[in-house]
Amino acid sequence: MSQQRIVRVSLEHPTSAVCVAGVETLVDIYGSVPEGTEMFEVYGTPGVDIYISPSMERGRERADTRRWRCNAGLEIIVVMNSPSNDVNDSHVQISYYSGHKPLPLAYTVLYLTCVDITLDCDLNCDGRQNGSFRQWVWGPMVWAILLVNCDRDDVNCDDRDNYLEDMSVMVLRTQGPAALFDDHRLVLHTSSYDAKWARVFHACGPEDSCEAYRHVLGRDKVSYEVPRSHGDEERFFVEGLSFPDAGFSGLVSFHVTLLDDSNEDFSESPIFTDTVVFRVAPWIMTPSTLPPLEVYVCQVRNNTRFVDAVAELAMKAGCKLTICPQAENRNDRWIQDEMELGYVQAPHKTFPVVFDSPRNGELQDFPYKRILGPDFGYVTREPQDSSVCGLDSFGNLEVSPPVVANGKSTPWGGSSLGQPAWRVQPPVELFVDWLAVGHVDEFLSFVPAPDGKGFRMLLASPSACFKLFQEKRKWGHGRALLFEGVVGNNQVSTISINQVLSNENLISFNKFVQSCVDWNREVLKRELGLTERDIVDIPQLFKSERRKAVAFFPDLVNMLVLGKHLGIPKPFGPIINGRCCLEEKVRSLLEPLGLHCTFIDDFTPYHMLHGEVHCGTNVRRQPFSFKWWHMVP
Amino acid sequence: MSQQRIVRVSLEHPTSAVCVAGVETLVDIYGSVPEGTEMFEVYGTPGVDIYISPSMERGRERADTRRWRCNAGLEIIVVMNSPSNDVNDSHVQISYYSGHKPLPLAYTVLYLTCVDITLDCDLNCDGRQNGSFRQWVWGPMVWAILLVNCDRDDVNCDDRDNYLEDMSVMVLRTQGPAALFDDHRLVLHTSSYDAKWARVFHACGPEDSCEAYRHVLGRDKVSYEVPRSHGDEERFFVEGLSFPDAGFSGLVSFHVTLLDDSNEDFSESPIFTDTVVFRVAPWIMTPSTLPPLEVYVCQVRNNTRFVDAVAELAMKAGCKLTICPQAENRNDRWIQDEMELGYVQAPHKTFPVVFDSPRNGELQDFPYKRILGPDFGYVTREPQDSSVCGLDSFGNLEVSPPVVANGKSTPWGGSSLGQPAWRVQPPVELFVDWLAVGHVDEFLSFVPAPDGKGFRMLLASPSACFKLFQEKRKWGHGRALLFEGVVGNNQVSTISINQVLSNENLISFNKFVQSCVDWNREVLKRELGLTERDIVDIPQLFKSERRKAVAFFPDLVNMLVLGKHLGIPKPFGPIINGRCCLEEKVRSLLEPLGLHCTFIDDFTPYHMLHGEVHCGTNVRRQPFSFKWWHMVP
Repeated sequence: MSQQRIVRVSLEHPTSAVCVAGVETLVDIYGSVPEGTEMFEVYGTPGVDIYISPSMERGRERADTRRWRCNAGLEIIVVMNSPSNDVNDSHVQISYYSGHKPLPLAYTVLYLTCVDITLDCDLNCDGRQNGSFRQWVWGPMVWAILLVNCDRDDVNCDDRDNYLEDMSVMVLRTQGPAALFDDHRLVLHTSSYDAKWARVFHACGPEDSCEAYRHVLGRDKVSYEVPRSHGDEERFFVEGLSFPDAGFSGLVSFHVTLLDDSNEDFSESPIFTDTVVFRVAPWIMTPSTLPPLEVYVCQVRNNTRFVDAVAELAMKAGCKLTICPQAENRNDRWIQDEMELGYVQAPHKTFPVVFDSPRNGELQDFPYKRILGPDFGYVTREPQDSSVCGLDSFGNLEVSPPVVANGKSTPWGGSSLGQPAWRVQPPVELFVDWLAVGHVDEFLSFVPAPDGKGFRMLLASPSACFKLFQEKRKWGHGRALLFEGVVGNNQVSTISINQVLSNENLISFNKFVQSCVDWNREVLKRELGLTERDIVDIPQLFKSERRKAVAFFPDLVNMLVLGKHLGIPKPFGPIINGRCCLEEKVRSLLEPLGLHCTFIDDFTPYHMLHGEVHCGTNVRRQPFSFKWWHMVP
Repeated sequence: MSQQRIVRVSLEHPTSAVCVAGVETLVDIYGSVPEGTEMFEVYGTPGVDIYISPSMERGRERADTRRWRCNAGLEIIVVMNSPSNDVNDSHVQISYYSGHKPLPLAYTVLYLTCVDITLDCDLNCDGRQNGSFRQWVWGPMVWAILLVNCDRDDVNCDDRDNYLEDMSVMVLRTQGPAALFDDHRLVLHTSSYDAKWARVFHACGPEDSCEAYRHVLGRDKVSYEVPRSHGDEERFFVEGLSFPDAGFSGLVSFHVTLLDDSNEDFSESPIFTDTVVFRVAPWIMTPSTLPPLEVYVCQVRNNTRFVDAVAELAMKAGCKLTICPQAENRNDRWIQDEMELGYVQAPHKTFPVVFDSPRNGELQDFPYKRILGPDFGYVTREPQDSSVCGLDSFGNLEVSPPVVANGKSTPWGGSSLGQPAWRVQPPVELFVDWLAVGHVDEFLSFVPAPDGKGFRMLLASPSACFKLFQEKRKWGHGRALLFEGVVGNNQVSTISINQVLSNENLISFNKFVQSCVDWNREVLKRELGLTERDIVDIPQLFKSERRKAVAFFPDLVNMLVLGKHLGIPKPFGPIINGRCCLEEKVRSLLEPLGLHCTFIDDFTPYHMLHGEVHCGTNVRRQPFSFKWWHMVP
C-alpha cells in the first residue's frame, strides 16, 4: 500500500490521529519546534513502529532511543500493524532538546487509534483470497471477476434476475474500537462511469429474507454509507451489467473510504481509501472443435428425416438434442443464423450464454423464450444504424480453434470470422461478397485432429473437385451421374461427369470461386498462422446465380461437427462402383484423422433453399479447459 | 507487403493474371500437371522475377534456367516491380519434362499485367512521405495524422467548414496500362465504424471550383468507386470528426481495393488491397508553465481597475489581451470556468481549440460566437446524465507541466486534475469536497522555474501562514491588521494577527484544511513523481462556510501565470514596516525563481464572490515544442 498520510503535531496541545494498519503516517514536527531545539527524541507505546528517514533518500532507521539532530530533512514515519482496542490507546511522544542537555525543552504527544480496513474479493466456495485487488492482473491467481448476470434463475419472473450465486462477493473487513465509528464513516463508492457497468448489493438483513439484499451501487447510485450494524465483516454481492466491447474495457473499480466526521464545523475528510478492481468476464465463443453438449434443430414442414438423422448423430456423439417445434419457428429453419452459443466464466461459476443475432427472423423469440433460463444466459445487440443485412446472421460468425499467430497467443478461439455485428474475440475479416448468401460457413469449417495444431481447416475447393472428376473420367467413369439418388425432388436433373467437365461456364465460374477461396486462404494462413499442412481441400463446386455463388451440389464443408462425429450434407455425387465418389473422397481425407463421416440428406429442405446441415443446426459446447483470465491478451 | 495471391494455371489454355508491383504471386501448377511429369522449368520475360521455394521452409532460390523436380512441396513465386505498358505484355512459361529428356511433355503459359497501386499519406507542404501507412506507429516519422476540422475558416458561414488546408492529404497512385481499367475497378472503402469518425473528400473537379471536392467517404458512405479520370494520381482530403476519447481510440483506416470485374457472369473479386491508417490528433491542454500568447478577461459592472491591471500585466508579458464585453458576458466573470484553451497539432498544421465546458452560464455563447474562427477550433461536450455540477467548471480542469512519473513519460502535460467531464491527458483525481466551490485551482498552481523539473507546484498552506504570523507576533507585530487597505468595501472588518492566532475555531478549521491539502499533496507527489523540493508552500488561510472552506483572505495560489510574470490576488495582509507581510513572504519564495510578482486587487469583484484572479482570466498558450506523436503513450 503506497498511501501515506501526513499528521502535523503541535506544542500547544496533544494531537489525535487515526491510522490504518500497515499504512505509514508521516509525522511533521517542523511546524512547531520550540526555540533553541537542536535535537529530538521519539518514543512510541508498544505496537507503534517508528522510523526516522532522511526524506530525499531511501534509507530509514528504527527511531529507538537515540537523539536525532533536528533538521527539516528528517522525516518521522509511524506504522501500526494491529487495530487498537480503544480510541487513542497508543501514542507517540516527541521530546525536544537543546544540544545534549538531559531535560527536554518541551514535548508533543500524538495519540493514535489504529483500524484495519480492507476491501477484498472473495469466493463463495472456499473463501480463498489473494490480498491485493487494487490493480487487475491477468494470471492464475485472479479472482476479481464479475459475471454479467444475464440468466433467469426464477423462471416465473419476466425480468432478469439477481440470483446471488451468479454474483461475485466483495468483503469489507474493519477492525478497530467501535467508538471510533461514532464520528467516522465508511463509504463504499465508485465513479458514475463505472456505475453503468455493474451493480452492488449489500447483505444487510437477516439471511434468506427478501429484504436481506439492498441494491447500494449502480446507475445513479455512486456512493453508499456502510452501516456499522453486525460485526467486522460486511458482505457485498456484485454483478456485471454489460459485456466488454468497444465502448467498455471490462474493468470496474469500487472503493471504500474512511471519512473523519468528528468535527461538526468541518466537512468530512478522507483518512484512507482501499480499492478493488473487477473485470467483467467476456462472452466467449466456442469453436466447432470443442466437445458438444447439446444440439439444436428446428422441426419444420418437410424435414422429418433430416431431424431424425441429426437426432441419431447427436445420440452417437453422446449429446442432448433440443428440437424447436414448428409452432415456435414458423418454418424458419436457420437456427445457426438466429443465435450463437457461448459461455461466461468466473472462478465461482460458469454458464452458457446465447447471443441472439440482430437477424430477427421468424425464429427471433426462440433464444429469449426457450433458451434463457436458470444458469443459461442471454445477450443480444440491436442492429447498428437500424439496418440488418445477411452479414449480421450468425452463419457469418464463426470462431477458429485456439491458435498462436503473429507472435500473439489467442487461445480461446482465435478469431471470429466474417464481419459480425459484435466482436468479442479478435476478428479476421474475410471476403464473402462473391457468395449469394455470403456466410463464411459456406466455404470454411474446422474439425478436430489428433496431430498438428489439434485441428484442420476445411476449405471448399472447386480445383480439388475438378481434379477428382478428371481422374474419374480418365478411369472411364465420365458418364457417372450427379443427383441420381435425390429423393422426391423433381426440380433437379442429373448431370454426368463428362457434362460437368465440358461446361465451360461452370468451369470458368469455379475458377473464379477458387480465386475467391484462395484470397481467404491466404488471409487465414497469415492471420491464424496456418500452413498448408493445417488445411484440407474438400471437393466442391459452385454455380452462379445473378453473378454470385451458390453450392452446385450440397455444400460438404457446411457440416455439423460433434466431436469425432461429422454430419455432412449428402452430396449426391457420381456413383462409381456403387459408391458416391465425393463421399468416398471426403472419407479418405477425414477418416485418417479419426473422424466418422455421416452423410445427411438435406437436399430438399435445406440445400434447395441455399443452406445446409450447419445452417440448420446449432450446438452448445463445453467451455475451454483453460481459464480466459490465465492468458494475457 | 505481406499480401500474396495464388494463381492456378492450367494445361488447356493460357491463364491471365494481374499482379501488383512488389507483391508476390504464388503460381500453383499442381492442379494440372501432365501425366509422367518428373521435372519442370520456368521461364519469365524480362521484368518478371521468379523464385522457387520449398513451401514449408524459409529459403528460396532464383528459378533461373534450372530444371526442378516436380513435387507438390515446391512453390513458384512470381514478382514484378514495374508496371506493364500493355495488358498481358509479360508472361511466365512452365515446361513439364519426363526426367531429363530434352523435349517437354507440355507447357503452360501465364500472361501477366503488372500495376502499381499505393495509397499514401502526403504532406501539403513538401510532399514528403514515409512509405508504409498500413499500421500506425508512434515516432518522429509519422505523418498519418488527422485534425478534427473544428475551426471556422469562412466567418460568414454558420456551419463548421471543410477548409482544405486543415485536412490531411491521402494520395492514390496507380500506374499500369489504361486498358486494364476497362474491366477492373478501384474502390476506396472503410468500415461503417471508422466512417463515423472521419470524412474523405475527392479532388475530382477543376481546381478552385466549388464542385472540385466531392464528399466520398463518411457517415453512410463506406465505399467509393474511384473514377479513372485524370492521370495516375488521385488526391483525397481527409478530416477528423471527433476527438479521441473513451469510445474512440483515434485510429481510422482507409483501404483501396483493386477489383476484377472482367467477367460479366461472375461477381467482382479482389486482387489487391492497400491501407492507410490515420490517427486523429488529440486535443492537448496547455499547463500554466507554457509561454502565454493571449489573455482573456471579462469586463463586468465593477471590475474596471482589475481589467486595467490584467491588461498591464499582459503587456509586460508581451501577450495579446482580449476583453469580453459586458454585453456578451452579462456580468458572468468566471471565464476560467467557461472554457479551456488547448490546441491540436498535425505535421501540416497546428491551431488552438477552445473546449467549451458543460457549465453553460451567462458566458455560454462566448466560446462559440467569439473564439471560434479561422484557425481557431471549438469543441464541447454536453453534460453526462443531463446534470451539471460545479465540478464540470473548468476551474476544476487543470494540467500539470510535463512529468515523468511511475516509470511512464507523460510529456505533454501529465495529468488533468480534478474530475473533469472529459479526459484527454491521463487524469489524477484529487479530493476537493472540503472546498465550498470545489475547484483544484483554489489550492494548487504551477509556475515555471529555472531548475529542478522546470517548474514548482504551489500549494495553499495554512500551516505556513500560522508559522509566518507567529513569527510576526514574536517580533512585536501582533497588532498589525489584515484587510486594512481594502478599498470601497464595507462588508469586511479588519482583524489583527493576535486575533487570528487566538481564534480557536479558525485555527482548528485551518488544521482541517491543512489535512485536506496534505492528502492531495501526497496524491500529487505519488502520481506526478514529485518530491518536497518541487513544492512551495504559499501561506494561506481558509474559513468555514457551511462546513466547507473558502479563502479567508484573497487566495494567493489562484494566480494568473504569464511566463515569469505572475498576477497574484492582493492578499491585504498585515502591514509591517510599510509592507504587506504576506506579499513579502510570497516574493521571498518566488522571486528567487526569477519570477515577477504583481499583486492585483480582486477583493470586491472576485474574492467576495469566492473567486480570484485565476478564476477571472483565461490564457491561450504556445503549444509544446515537442510533437505529441513523437512519444509512445
